[in-house]
Amino acid sequence: MNRLHDPKIYSFASDNYSGIHPKILAALNTANEGHQSAYGADVYTAALQDKIKQLFGEQAQAYPVFNGTGANIIALQSLLPRWGAVICAESAHINCDEGNAPEYLGGMKLFSIPTADGKLTPELVAKQAWGFGFEHRAQPAVVYISQTTELGTCYTVPEIKALADYCHQHHMKLYLDGARLSNALVTQNTDVKTMITATGVDMLNLGGTKNGLLQGECIIAMHGEQQEAMPYLRKINAQLGSKMRYLSAQFLAWFEDDLWLQLAQHSNAMAMRLANALADIKEISLTQKTEANAVFAIVPKAICERLHEQFHFYDWNEQIQEVRWMTSFDTTAEQIDTFVAAIRQTIATS
Amino acid sequence: MNRLHDPKIYSFASDNYSGIHPKILAALNTANEGHQSAYGADVYTAALQDKIKQLFGEQAQAYPVFNGTGANIIALQSLLPRWGAVICAESAHINCDEGNAPEYLGGMKLFSIPTADGKLTPELVAKQAWGFGFEHRAQPAVVYISQTTELGTCYTVPEIKALADYCHQHHMKLYLDGARLSNALVTQNTDVKTMITATGVDMLNLGGTKNGLLQGECIIAMHGEQQEAMPYLRKINAQLGSKMRYLSAQFLAWFEDDLWLQLAQHSNAMAMRLANALADIKEISLTQKTEANAVFAIVPKAICERLHEQFHFYDWNEQIQEVRWMTSFDTTAEQIDTFVAAIRQTIATS
Amino acid sequence: MNRLHDPKIYSFASDNYSGIHPKILAALNTANEGHQSAYGADVYTAALQDKIKQLFGEQAQAYPVFNGTGANIIALQSLLPRWGAVICAESAHINCDEGNAPEYLGGMKLFSIPTADGKLTPELVAKQAWGFGFEHRAQPAVVYISQTTELGTCYTVPEIKALADYCHQHHMKLYLDGARLSNALVTQNTDVKTMITATGVDMLNLGGTKNGLLQGECIIAMHGEQQEAMPYLRKINAQLGSKMRYLSAQFLAWFEDDLWLQLAQHSNAMAMRLANALADIKEISLTQKTEANAVFAIVPKAICERLHEQFHFYDWNEQIQEVRWMTSFDTTAEQIDTFVAAIRQTIATS
Amino acid sequence: MNRLHDPKIYSFASDNYSGIHPKILAALNTANEGHQSAYGADVYTAALQDKIKQLFGEQAQAYPVFNGTGANIIALQSLLPRWGAVICAESAHINCDEGNAPEYLGGMKLFSIPTADGKLTPELVAKQAWGFGFEHRAQPAVVYISQTTELGTCYTVPEIKALADYCHQHHMKLYLDGARLSNALVTQNTDVKTMITATGVDMLNLGGTKNGLLQGECIIAMHGEQQEAMPYLRKINAQLGSKMRYLSAQFLAWFEDDLWLQLAQHSNAMAMRLANALADIKEISLTQKTEANAVFAIVPKAICERLHEQFHFYDWNEQIQEVRWMTSFDTTAEQIDTFVAAIRQTIATS
Repeated sequence: MNRLHDPKIYSFASDNYSGIHPKILAALNTANEGHQSAYGADVYTAALQDKIKQLFGEQAQAYPVFNGTGANIIALQSLLPRWGAVICAESAHINCDEGNAPEYLGGMKLFSIPTADGKLTPELVAKQAWGFGFEHRAQPAVVYISQTTELGTCYTVPEIKALADYCHQHHMKLYLDGARLSNALVTQNTDVKTMITATGVDMLNLGGTKNGLLQGECIIAMHGEQQEAMPYLRKINAQLGSKMRYLSAQFLAWFEDDLWLQLAQHSNAMAMRLANALADIKEISLTQKTEANAVFAIVPKAICERLHEQFHFYDWNEQIQEVRWMTSFDTTAEQIDTFVAAIRQTIATS
Repeated sequence: MNRLHDPKIYSFASDNYSGIHPKILAALNTANEGHQSAYGADVYTAALQDKIKQLFGEQAQAYPVFNGTGANIIALQSLLPRWGAVICAESAHINCDEGNAPEYLGGMKLFSIPTADGKLTPELVAKQAWGFGFEHRAQPAVVYISQTTELGTCYTVPEIKALADYCHQHHMKLYLDGARLSNALVTQNTDVKTMITATGVDMLNLGGTKNGLLQGECIIAMHGEQQEAMPYLRKINAQLGSKMRYLSAQFLAWFEDDLWLQLAQHSNAMAMRLANALADIKEISLTQKTEANAVFAIVPKAICERLHEQFHFYDWNEQIQEVRWMTSFDTTAEQIDTFVAAIRQTIATS
Repeated sequence: MNRLHDPKIYSFASDNYSGIHPKILAALNTANEGHQSAYGADVYTAALQDKIKQLFGEQAQAYPVFNGTGANIIALQSLLPRWGAVICAESAHINCDEGNAPEYLGGMKLFSIPTADGKLTPELVAKQAWGFGFEHRAQPAVVYISQTTELGTCYTVPEIKALADYCHQHHMKLYLDGARLSNALVTQNTDVKTMITATGVDMLNLGGTKNGLLQGECIIAMHGEQQEAMPYLRKINAQLGSKMRYLSAQFLAWFEDDLWLQLAQHSNAMAMRLANALADIKEISLTQKTEANAVFAIVPKAICERLHEQFHFYDWNEQIQEVRWMTSFDTTAEQIDTFVAAIRQTIATS
Repeated sequence: MNRLHDPKIYSFASDNYSGIHPKILAALNTANEGHQSAYGADVYTAALQDKIKQLFGEQAQAYPVFNGTGANIIALQSLLPRWGAVICAESAHINCDEGNAPEYLGGMKLFSIPTADGKLTPELVAKQAWGFGFEHRAQPAVVYISQTTELGTCYTVPEIKALADYCHQHHMKLYLDGARLSNALVTQNTDVKTMITATGVDMLNLGGTKNGLLQGECIIAMHGEQQEAMPYLRKINAQLGSKMRYLSAQFLAWFEDDLWLQLAQHSNAMAMRLANALADIKEISLTQKTEANAVFAIVPKAICERLHEQFHFYDWNEQIQEVRWMTSFDTTAEQIDTFVAAIRQTIATS
């Protein structure tokens, strides 16, 4: 098959516009040839289990799946009774970016809460954490947070611990959507044992797709309580891959020599490079802290339109002319500098 | 990442135990680097659309998804009202191998019909195609067939046409689960326009995973009627891949120079080599025609147990001591011959 | 409002064609006037709870609902994991008469088994009670039986006990659809403690609608294990009545002086009167034992058509010219005799 | 069965605490005796169809069901694709009072919007009516309004028309939850042709339970478009009553001589009597206009607690000490006066 695309094309649209890191692609080759048992009974998935336990603790169980929506909804189903509800930020991925998959696949109600920065606090959660035992209300059973958030912000370790404690005091579970967990670990300069295991997160998705994998997410159940449910839930939600060795091998390569953290560090640094460069451009104002690989900014409409002609990125909130610029593991400093120069040039000629 | 497995291991367990064909792996490399729009708005998916139209006709629309269960259930949902039922063989993949995913994800009822060889006929379908307009009965709206069947048999072109005609006369649709469609095309010595387009199949899944892809299935809607529904159904069933270029590129490489048919021809030939070699072993009797890449046979229990010690394969029906042996694109003639020799040796020493 | 119907019209179509027993109607009047807390927090529902405990044992919990489909599906949901399946007779109400409600509302798979008389046995159940722990198969978790069956037959007490024992040995639950339980109690000449409590039935629906109530079914959970789940499941399945006092009052009147059993005894006797009268009519052959209030018979087509002109009843299996004749609490001996005379007359003049 | 309750007990808790109007109870008696076809094929349901067409127009189709949650969710399902969303007020019954039934039974997403008085406007709806054609967002397809609202307020005829026009301009449908429609018709001093038919409401529930019926809601499809879907959806959602003649007969008696409107007028008048009496009690402030049979007020905590000892009513919003007092068709002027006197007495002695 011939190459159909120009590999020099880059964008600031999303980290899932980027490709596969060469070491991940190499891992597919390494795991290839010969026969391996399907549906997870292969040596690479066994090794991934070991690695996850090493990283997250002995109780942790890994369940590789296809994508983030699948991971989120399967994990939430395992934590919810049929009459359960999930408390989340209004900007949460499950509330804004997954259609009605949470409701359609899982039957769950989302109680969403407006936030300034995409982050929940116990005080915010309390707005919806009520009605326990009242049959007329969907029962709040899980709090969902994203790390990093959909607004490019990060929870600190104490913030996560406060939420986990609040949840457990109210007989709820804390689920963390870690589609970009690697970016947050780098930003918070900590490790998973500290951020996840010690804080009391009950379950999470560890996302690889947005950080160099061809494709792959991994549900991690922290307490072993979901060991009976998870294989079945993954199966009936059509997220059980037959040739799982390739999903697992990608993760193994990703963890090797902390590649996942290196890639995250780079994409974070590129976002920070962009944010810093914008700091003295008075026409543009940042709307969120740049704590990961996304920059949110308000850009005058005329300038924004001209930038769209040259670069691919998304408007976030058209009512306030807010845009989102995302960086990836393969974003280069030169690309950032070219983009900033274009912004300056556009402003200068407007 | 180091290789953890022995690539010389082979089995007759399932065609999803095999790996990735080198040309498919090469295609992932070709499609890599640079940024491409996510969720199918990339050049490879556009090229796949063109290729599918070329193969299946101008009206055909392609929707790549992750796996066969996802493909089947999304496609069936698009063809069913909420009160709809699917008529299928008792041995159908959706009835036997997908847990309660059809019911849980799609809310559909399956009316299953016992068959001798995994194949439906209009006469068999008629046993369940009744009660139209009667509110107390789930309404039969789709007939599901597998090509090849789960029993390694194939529908002929006239057989498919007869089913499609019957369906349309009764205001039902014909859905074809083509997880192994390539094997059937080779066996029937025909092309997709003849087997699918001209017969009136309404929708199908074209499976790649079991025939050399890393992973990839492709729902094909034949009439363009599902164009509104399909993107949403794929999304809310968590089967919309972000980095879709890699799914599509695999298919493009698979179609190039008829690789898909070559690989199917080989795995079929290996199954036939096995079946032929067994013909004069009186202790073993074949239970189904060998029309694709599976051989079904009754093997005395003692012999079967000793074979299990040396080779990985599945018991199919323990009550009658029936086993299934599957071949793959990478099965070699030498492996077949070794296996047959082991069978003979086992019998001789029993 | 004026009467729009002729109260002299009767039929043998179904026991839900009949009306409300006068004592039940009187109970609605007795429970009327003044205010009572909604959703079951009223004195009549409290009294019903007491009555159910008295009848079924201290652990029993009653949950009045609207109809049989609702009762069955809510109860089954409470006994099933999301990946669960129900084993039932092919002729089971949940398999034949509730559309795809079990699948659509509850996501459950039905493993149905052909039977001669609508009754399961441990041997029959064993045909589907396998694959425990295998993630690719919906997990059999409940056996569903109807008492009386949809074919007018009854389980004996030992037969129920054998099924309950089998279920519990295989970590499954036994659910009994008692839409016509009162008819079976009369036939088997026993009481609920013997038939239900002592045998180990885990959950049941006690049906009133088909035996003199305006409308009303009552889920009974035998072990108190569903106490957390049931209120929520009843709510989210839209089966929680606000003015529940009227549902409960009907049941209280129904139990008073064993009215429920008296009514069942009468309808059973009317069916037996019919069956006995048909015994010497050689043109008609009964296809099932008459153990409750239904008579199944094969009637020559020409005769059947002429009878349809005069009486309302249902064809059951048109392929073999089988019909079903049902009696009700208000069927009279005179009606039976008139019907039999008409049959004889029709045959004589054919 | 003996009377177990004191018929002199009354409350201001909810209109579903009240009983059955004598004329409705009489209708059950009138419709009793003899056999009538089940599941709606009876003469009373036929007469109800005629009556609904007379009231709402020739296209209107009536589908009696058991309760309001069932009515709402079935009707919404008929208007929604599987990927659909409903726009509603944050205080909407489907959002606050039906558990996760909309999500669990119907798979629908609710986009809820904060309002001051429980009423939507086109401007408010516009906040969520976007993303049409965007596969990542549940597709807004229906706007749900309650008439009267859960806050005791009413939409005027022009307000409903403005919403219907907005919906239709955006290819959405307008659904009206008329659990208390009769109260609104009285308040707005208009008829159903003007309020419902002429404004363009697409579908509604006409509620009887809260206004004198034993139990009964009636889905009304205004355009005949749901004629294929509705019988099946009612069936698979377990809301198809077998002895439907009694549901229908209640409605027939309710419509006779405008009983429904007389009862609504009375309960409205009782609420207004209460509201007027409170007007000069400075310790109590009304929080919503009294436009139907509910009064919302802020009451000092100490006073509220003492009132709770004597009268049954619900706290609505404990954070602001808001309570709800509801009147019913059987609330008497004397009861209101007694209650007001108790309030004054309590305040005087606090």
